[in-house]
Order: sequence, then C-alpha cells, then structure tokens
Amino acid sequence: MSNDRKIYKPGPIRGFPEWLPEERLVEQKWFDHIRNVFESYGFCSIETPSVEEIDVLTAKGEVDKEIYVIERLHKDDSDKSEARLALHFDQTVPFARYVAMRFNDLVFPFKRYQIQRVWRGERPQAGRFREFYQCDIDVIGVDALPMHFDAEMPAVMWEILTGLPGMENEKIQMQISNRKVLLGLLAHLGIKDAVKYTTFIDKMEKIGIDAVKAGLKLNLRLDELSEDIADKILHLASIKTSDAVTLRAEIAKLGINDESFNIGVEELAFVLESLKGLPKDAIVADLSIVRGLDYYTGTVYETRFLDDPTYGSICSGGRYDDLASGYINKHLPGVGISIGFSRLFAKMIEKGTLNTTQKSPADLMMIMPSEDRRGEILALCQGLRKRGIKVEMYHAARKIPDQLKYAAKKGIPYVWFPDEDGHKIKNMLTQEQGPADPATWERPQ
Amino acid sequence: MSNDRKIYKPGPIRGFPEWLPEERLVEQKWFDHIRNVFESYGFCSIETPSVEEIDVLTAKGEVDKEIYVIERLHKDDSDKSEARLALHFDQTVPFARYVAMRFNDLVFPFKRYQIQRVWRGERPQAGRFREFYQCDIDVIGVDALPMHFDAEMPAVMWEILTGLPGMENEKIQMQISNRKVLLGLLAHLGIKDAVKYTTFIDKMEKIGIDAVKAGLKLNLRLDELSEDIADKILHLASIKTSDAVTLRAEIAKLGINDESFNIGVEELAFVLESLKGLPKDAIVADLSIVRGLDYYTGTVYETRFLDDPTYGSICSGGRYDDLASGYINKHLPGVGISIGFSRLFAKMIEKGTLNTTQKSPADLMMIMPSEDRRGEILALCQGLRKRGIKVEMYHAARKIPDQLKYAAKKGIPYVWFPDEDGHKIKNMLTQEQGPADPATWERPQ
Repeated sequence: MSNDRKIYKPGPIRGFPEWLPEERLVEQKWFDHIRNVFESYGFCSIETPSVEEIDVLTAKGEVDKEIYVIERLHKDDSDKSEARLALHFDQTVPFARYVAMRFNDLVFPFKRYQIQRVWRGERPQAGRFREFYQCDIDVIGVDALPMHFDAEMPAVMWEILTGLPGMENEKIQMQISNRKVLLGLLAHLGIKDAVKYTTFIDKMEKIGIDAVKAGLKLNLRLDELSEDIADKILHLASIKTSDAVTLRAEIAKLGINDESFNIGVEELAFVLESLKGLPKDAIVADLSIVRGLDYYTGTVYETRFLDDPTYGSICSGGRYDDLASGYINKHLPGVGISIGFSRLFAKMIEKGTLNTTQKSPADLMMIMPSEDRRGEILALCQGLRKRGIKVEMYHAARKIPDQLKYAAKKGIPYVWFPDEDGHKIKNMLTQEQGPADPATWERPQ
Repeated sequence: MSNDRKIYKPGPIRGFPEWLPEERLVEQKWFDHIRNVFESYGFCSIETPSVEEIDVLTAKGEVDKEIYVIERLHKDDSDKSEARLALHFDQTVPFARYVAMRFNDLVFPFKRYQIQRVWRGERPQAGRFREFYQCDIDVIGVDALPMHFDAEMPAVMWEILTGLPGMENEKIQMQISNRKVLLGLLAHLGIKDAVKYTTFIDKMEKIGIDAVKAGLKLNLRLDELSEDIADKILHLASIKTSDAVTLRAEIAKLGINDESFNIGVEELAFVLESLKGLPKDAIVADLSIVRGLDYYTGTVYETRFLDDPTYGSICSGGRYDDLASGYINKHLPGVGISIGFSRLFAKMIEKGTLNTTQKSPADLMMIMPSEDRRGEILALCQGLRKRGIKVEMYHAARKIPDQLKYAAKKGIPYVWFPDEDGHKIKNMLTQEQGPADPATWERPQ
C-alpha cells in the first residue's frame, strides 16, 4: 500500500543528543541516582521554564552569541507588546531570577538542585552539544553562608560520581582550592589585577614549571621576576594534599601574613577536615586550581579523570559572593557545583562500559497461553504489579517460542509461565526454570 | 552595600508555569507515580530533542502558527547550511520521526512512554500554557497491532489518574468509543463525508437531543431528515455502558449489518471485556465520543471530571492506522493516549487539595550540637543516608530553638538529637519525642 508514498527521511540534528531505549534506561538510572543523593542531603528540586527574557539572560556578560532566541513562526502585532524570549544557556541565571522573584517564599539557607536541559546556540561542530542536561546544586544564604556547605558540595558529588552505574572502574579525583589563597599571595607580593593572569597557573601540570615561570614573568609584567616571588607562587601552586595539617605546614613555609590569604587557608583546611571520611586521594587540595570565572570568590572545585587529565573537568563549581545582584536588593552569598551530565554520559556510552542489554524496564514477561484465559492472566499481571513488579503481558496467544523470542529480543530478564499445573518462572540469562508463587515472587537482586 | 545598585525585577513569563519548591515536590510525586505505572506495564522511556526540523513539524498540517522557531541571536553564514529548527508542539511528530529513524534498532510491538515539555507559540491569554508537560504512551506494530493494547491504554491511565496524590476525591470517568461504529452507521445510512459532521454529535449532552437533531438535518445536508435515520443516530449516540453484553444488545436494536460497523462493535466489546476488573463506571463505552482528529481510525478515549464535564478531556487518545507515513516505507499502526499534565496539575494546585506542606525532601534534620563534634555528626548523617534516609544536617552549631525553627519552616517531619546521653527523635507534627537508634530507625509511613 505504501510504495507510492513520497518519503522524507529526517536525519539526526547535530548537537542534539538522542538515545535508544536501552541507552535511555541507563540514563534514567543515572538521573535516579543523582536525584537520590541530592535529596538524601536535603536539597529540594526546582525547575524553571526553558526560556527567560533576553534581557535577563544577557545582563551579566558576553554570552549573547550562544543564545537561542525563540519566535512564533508567524508573528503578529500581539507579539510586540511582549518581552523577547530565549532558551536558557545555564541554570545559574534562571536560578538567580527565581530566588529574587520568590525570595519571600523561600527558607534560607536555600538548598536546591536542578536537573534540566540547557541550550547553547553554538555553530555545529564535532563533539559540542547544543542541547544538554546539567545537574546543579547550590546553597544560598542571606548576608552570610556557613562554610559547612563548601564542604558538603564535594561530598555530595563524590558520592554521585562514584556511584553512577558503569562508572565503577573510572579513576576520578576532585580538586579543591580557594581563590583567596593564590590571590592573597599575589596581592601580598604587590601584583595588581592578578585575577586575569592566574588562569594559566593551573596549566602548570601541562606546560611545566619553566614555562609557567616564563609566563609569570611575561604576564605579571614584572621587569624582573625575582626568584623569590616565582618560587613562592610555584611552591603554592604545586601543593597537592588531602590532609589539612600538611596543607597548613606547606603554606606556612611561604611565610605570608595577609588577612585574606589566611582566611582562604583556614577555609580550605576546614573543607579538608570535613572530608576526612572519604577515601584517600578522592579529594585533594590543589592550589593551582583557579577556574576561569571571576564570579568565584572562595572555594573552587574541579573534577578529572586521573587517566585522562586533558579531558577537562566533569564537575565544577565554587563559592560566590552574591547570586542575584541586579534582580533584588539583598546580599545573597552562595556555593554551587554542577555536573555536565550529557557530555559525561555520551563519553561513557562511547566507551561502551554501560550495561545496555535491556530494551524494556519490565522485570518479567507474562506468557499469554490462550485467549479464553485472558481475564485470568490480566488479573495475575495486576496482582504482580500491585506488589511492585514490572510485568509486560504478551499481547496475543501466539506460539510459546515466538513469545519467548520477543522477551529475549527486549532483554526482559524473566518469563512467567501461568501453566495450569502450576506457575513457573524462567531466568532468560541462565535458562533455569522453576516454580513460582504470584503472591511471593520477587525479582532477585 | 547594595543600596546603590540598579535593580531590574523580572516578573513571571505568561504561559510558562513555574512552581515553588513545595509545589514541585508534589509535581515530582506525580511524575514518579506516572512513570511507575507506565513501567509496570513494560513501557520503555524515550526522550527526543526539544527541537525538530521545521519541515518535519509542519509536514502534517496547519499548525505552523503555533510553532516556536529557534534562532541564534547573532546568526552568521554557517547557519545557512543547516535546516531551520523549531520546538516540538507535541510528542507524536517527534515519536514518529524517532521510530522511522531508528526502525532497525527497535523491537515491535514497540511500547514507549514519553514525559517531556512541549511548546505552543500561542498568543498570550489567560489559562493557556505555552510550555507544558505531556505524558504519552503509544504502542506501535508493524503491519498489524493486536487489540490487546487498545484495552491496555485505559487500564494504565485509570490506574494513574486515580493514584495521583491529592486526586483521591476527584470523580473521574473515562469514555471509550470506536469510530468505526458511528462512521459505519452513517456510511450505511448513505451519508457521505460523514467525518466532518460527526464532531457535534458528541455535544449532545451539552446542547440536547432536539438541537442535535436540527444540527444533523443541517449538517448532513439531508433535504428531509427521516425520523428513522435521526432516531438511529441518536440511539447510537446515547448508548453509555461499561458492560459488553448491554453494548451488543443496544447496538443490535439498530438492525445494522455493515462490515466496518460490526468490526467496530466487536473491538469495543473486546475492550470493555478486558476492563471488567475495574470499578463499575470507571470506564464506559460512550458512542457519542468521536474526537476531533481525522487521525483516529478505531478506538478513541476521553476522560472527564464527572462534576465538571465542561472542563474538557484530561486524558485522550486513540487508535491510528499509520504512525510514520511520509518518513518510512512501512505500515505502522498504533494506539496511544496522553495526559495533559501541566494543565491538570495547575488545576489541582489552584483547587488547593494537594499537600504542599514540605519545602524539603528531607525525612529528618540532624541537630548540630557543637563544632567539636562535627566529624562525628557528619558520620552519623552518612550512616543514616546509607540506609536510604534523607538527612539534612543543620549547618552550624546554633542554639537549638533556632535549629528547630529552621526544620519547622521547611516542613521537615522529624528532628534528630544526637544527645550525649543517647539519640532522640522528635516528630515535628505531634511534638512527640523518643529514643532512636541510628542503626535501625525508619521513617514511619
């Protein structure tokens, strides 16, 4: 019947990931795990619309090239009276707008998580997503925010990253620093406007100490970079420890006494102390970490694959001074951290370590023995579902081998035979078969 | 410090719903429940990108006015080489494109659910959402699709709608019909092009039998509408029963023998038979239901509040002949049903029957007694979390009444006191307090 139809075959849209059912099933397990951990620390969920007013999105800087504007295909005069809208490119700007708008309805410190899609209007290029999920947590205080939360952020994310199904064998490490320390040192050494020169210090591992020394000379605009200053910066930037005592001892060698510097050291030491319960080397203070954004004013976080350090950070964030300045006349310090979900998930899909054998969420498929038993079989399935078991009832009284083939193709792990001489269940992986009781059967873990 | 800042206060964007944390918490419970039921019947999840090529979205009809196109704020030449993109306005078109594109990777009958946002570029007007969630299920076969699934659709949705937290006292009813019956009757009576005149028949309840009779006369373009024809149509359209035997008996009174008509009756009777396990009056065959879309070719579904019948259907769908004609040279019949989630959720929020007392997902708040016990308290929280309990640790060693006040404001149901003479737990609702063991405590259901 369909041979004379005109066929238009749409292909995938570059930069907009889409998964097969068996991949999506793992993606859901990842989201469930992330949500579970977030909530187990008392973070509440919020969602914001996909769009914001363009003026809100562009208020804070030069991101306008990456913004997707939305417009009705056939605009008319009624559109002119409205603000122009665009898809959000991160979850921080919408969150700031949300907190400002709903300030009186929220309880502070406000702990929220947000798992949504964001959009970047990038030119299409390999490996860049234009639509992707981010998983963010932030805690916002009014006027002040205890350091407790700076320590909670990496604890939450460590638990998440090491618990994602299929990530068990990945060696990851979180690096923590505090911008007050490096910036305090530079200010103390008389180097002004240091912020813009600091980002290359965290390339030390990549380019080597001599290159950093040369860079320091050039970038910090010292006519002559004294050996003393260079050594101090390099000493600081090479400190890597997860032990607060070692941290303090190494930093004491610099002999610096600067108020902001000292506060930074104490904040960082507090975070390390609070994370002592985690495995050794899970989280290290790494004083070369600065993060690109001026936005951050204290603690900063990055996370790397230890065997693929150039891949870039998979989970980053930090402490900032004021979330929603510009929208509300309140001082709202915060700390936050974010997983670039889709990029990480796509990497693991590509690597092939995720278990994508199931194309269906069903625990078992119910054999349909004959049409005249339909009512009985429907009731049997319903009873199992009431006990939390996911049951796909086969859709017609076909030959048993056909029914089994369907279950095998979908990767459904068990098949139930409602035989008249007694119920049986078959493990599709081991092919073992045994008796089963609808009132008590549970899927083995 | 902030008094001299320029403040821009963004307001809500009309048509784009956004919820407070305590409302979002209930919304999540709704989504969890819906997902659980979908999966308990073996439906697998898919998600598609938020956008499709404009040509894909507009291929099937006159919806272009409702489409939101996306464009990079600052376009350049590289954009011209790409297809124009727009936000999807439903989940059916993207699903059809998905099935066509991934046909060889899917197992048929393919049972999928999809819970995503969709966008309608409507003019702003009261009560109309421009961004909202839809929850869809569809089953797709190749060349044929068993009637089993036509019966499964309303069973799934009945379980969902009656199990949504806060909907317990709503009186809802699903109406089922089969378009082959009414259309078969009209064709049999010699009325051509009947489809376009049928939609007003389902207004019978609203406008009365005489008005429908007059309408039939006018719309069916009969010079003289014979009493016999009118009576037959009205008899059919007034049949309302959940019993297959009654259905067959009432329809037999018409004395019609038409192949398509008879098939329609048998299909409808099969669906009713399969749903016998549901409460009386949960689901009724209502032969006046036709649905607006020509798309549907057999079973059709609608769902109404019995005490607010003019509110419109909250859950609708039906059987269609071919999902993805135009994208693939295969014949893919299907059946689907959809909940307009956001509209229903917003209605219940407005009605005030949802329990929005909790602003946090935490089961309990852990009292922080003193800074020198921080390590011990962190470990205590961690132990409880490992057992699946959601614990917000208070963030500083403040006075106990301040800590309790915070828990009360967030609606956290329990507070844990790690007193040195033994752990205690307080029920914040009843104010009862008693001993608690970190190794065994469970939140009462």
